[in-house]
Amino acid sequence: MAFEFKCERRVEFSETDMAGVVHFTQFLKYMEYAEHAFFNSLGLSVYQKLDGAYYGWPKLKVECGFEKPLRFEDRVSIHLLVEEKTSKCLTFKCTIFRITGAGQAERVGAGIIKTICVEFGPNGEKLGATQMPKPVDDAIQQAPASFQIA
Amino acid sequence: MAFEFKCERRVEFSETDMAGVVHFTQFLKYMEYAEHAFFNSLGLSVYQKLDGAYYGWPKLKVECGFEKPLRFEDRVSIHLLVEEKTSKCLTFKCTIFRITGAGQAERVGAGIIKTICVEFGPNGEKLGATQMPKPVDDAIQQAPASFQIA
Amino acid sequence: MAFEFKCERRVEFSETDMAGVVHFTQFLKYMEYAEHAFFNSLGLSVYQKLDGAYYGWPKLKVECGFEKPLRFEDRVSIHLLVEEKTSKCLTFKCTIFRITGAGQAERVGAGIIKTICVEFGPNGEKLGATQMPKPVDDAIQQAPASFQIA
Amino acid sequence: MAFEFKCERRVEFSETDMAGVVHFTQFLKYMEYAEHAFFNSLGLSVYQKLDGAYYGWPKLKVECGFEKPLRFEDRVSIHLLVEEKTSKCLTFKCTIFRITGAGQAERVGAGIIKTICVEFGPNGEKLGATQMPKPVDDAIQQAPASFQIA
Repeated sequence: MAFEFKCERRVEFSETDMAGVVHFTQFLKYMEYAEHAFFNSLGLSVYQKLDGAYYGWPKLKVECGFEKPLRFEDRVSIHLLVEEKTSKCLTFKCTIFRITGAGQAERVGAGIIKTICVEFGPNGEKLGATQMPKPVDDAIQQAPASFQIA
Repeated sequence: MAFEFKCERRVEFSETDMAGVVHFTQFLKYMEYAEHAFFNSLGLSVYQKLDGAYYGWPKLKVECGFEKPLRFEDRVSIHLLVEEKTSKCLTFKCTIFRITGAGQAERVGAGIIKTICVEFGPNGEKLGATQMPKPVDDAIQQAPASFQIA
Repeated sequence: MAFEFKCERRVEFSETDMAGVVHFTQFLKYMEYAEHAFFNSLGLSVYQKLDGAYYGWPKLKVECGFEKPLRFEDRVSIHLLVEEKTSKCLTFKCTIFRITGAGQAERVGAGIIKTICVEFGPNGEKLGATQMPKPVDDAIQQAPASFQIA
Repeated sequence: MAFEFKCERRVEFSETDMAGVVHFTQFLKYMEYAEHAFFNSLGLSVYQKLDGAYYGWPKLKVECGFEKPLRFEDRVSIHLLVEEKTSKCLTFKCTIFRITGAGQAERVGAGIIKTICVEFGPNGEKLGATQMPKPVDDAIQQAPASFQIA
């Protein structure tokens, strides 16, 4: 069972704004990217048929603090931690780093994404919140309270 | 029957990039905005149930030339013309202007959007290209060859 | 002096995602839109030369809770409140409503944007956090503790 | 000297729209991504100081035809070809493929990006179109007329 995940991106031109830095909403997209890549790393998807039903994970809440700017072509590392797991919800803490030329990770922001498992009908109609399906429940666990992101 | 339409927007901060100007893909979004507002101005929508079936208008082709930059808080006017109408397709020519302080319209770009009418099933499944429904056919006509955007 | 502001938008097609609803990052863009429109309503801009220097307002922190979905062509009302004002920072509470056919406002989400005043050099180089310029300080005040968004 | 380049992406959730497919403007972002990655593959950047001056490559014109939809988590391959090179301009033909489960490339769209070399002053001010700097001129060549994208 997994409770943490790391992935990398590179800042694209279209992610910047006229202040010369990455637009703040893009930090949230980096966090969603890490969430989806975490599911993929476990052979899962955030939109998937499992055990005969369709499941998705809409957001309930997001938060993000912005500590340093990111710029075009910066290497970005996102470190995801499962901060809380209940029967229906997953809360991810995401810490965002810039990888410097020397390969050091400089922290540039951090936040959380709280998601809830929702069942969809065969035609995409939302049926409401539900307990997460067994394959997800079996693959993802809450991080130990003592665990720290480096 | 209508063959032209004008609408306005104001450049938002999140539409700019690190070059200090509106990102080129946003010109295409302005054109799509004008297309959808044109439908709305006729009591129609680009995603709509009409005569018992669902219709949408995906893009077949887009083109855009960029002549001058647009900047944060610029007033933008988009002038749409129905360049071609066939039984299934609508091609819109969109000319984009910046409204100056003096209220003059300075042309900053122009392009086309070619769309095709597609029918969807009741559950959102795409059924393929089709003749446009009568309410659209009755409301939109091709611009006269002699018509010029000011 | 002002401490609240309301503005409206309409959901655009490009703001939706494959779940058929507005993508969560767009809620944050709606909040930024309200922040910028609030400045404009006071004759100010979030990127502006005032008293001989250039000022901007990057985000320090954002939060948003998602209560109900927004869909294509929904009318959206954003109600902004100045939750906190210090010498350098402004924190806005933004509540997002869907305007129903009957003209009722149904709450769909709420969050905060915390911004900090930054001075820029004449060539766009960031000089660091600073006290907000007098025209902004004179125009914006913290909402009374007793004030409630309807 | 190089005249072609291939790169891959994976469709992200935030790139889709309510029609369940990738929004048409994202095809243009994929093309820009390939353009920038092509420069990077040659040790260059589209925003760079070379020979003591700053250069950028704004778009003059874009075109894109949409042949098949792309969906969430699809593997996308972008094949870039230098269709035309003049002293100041580069025109890229980009063909977009979906990589199927069997590893086959299915063509889903194609278009062009025409860019022009622009010099910037040390403070980011645009100085106008200029001949491309020698390192770019030395690294990029027009594709032979006989060259075909597979």
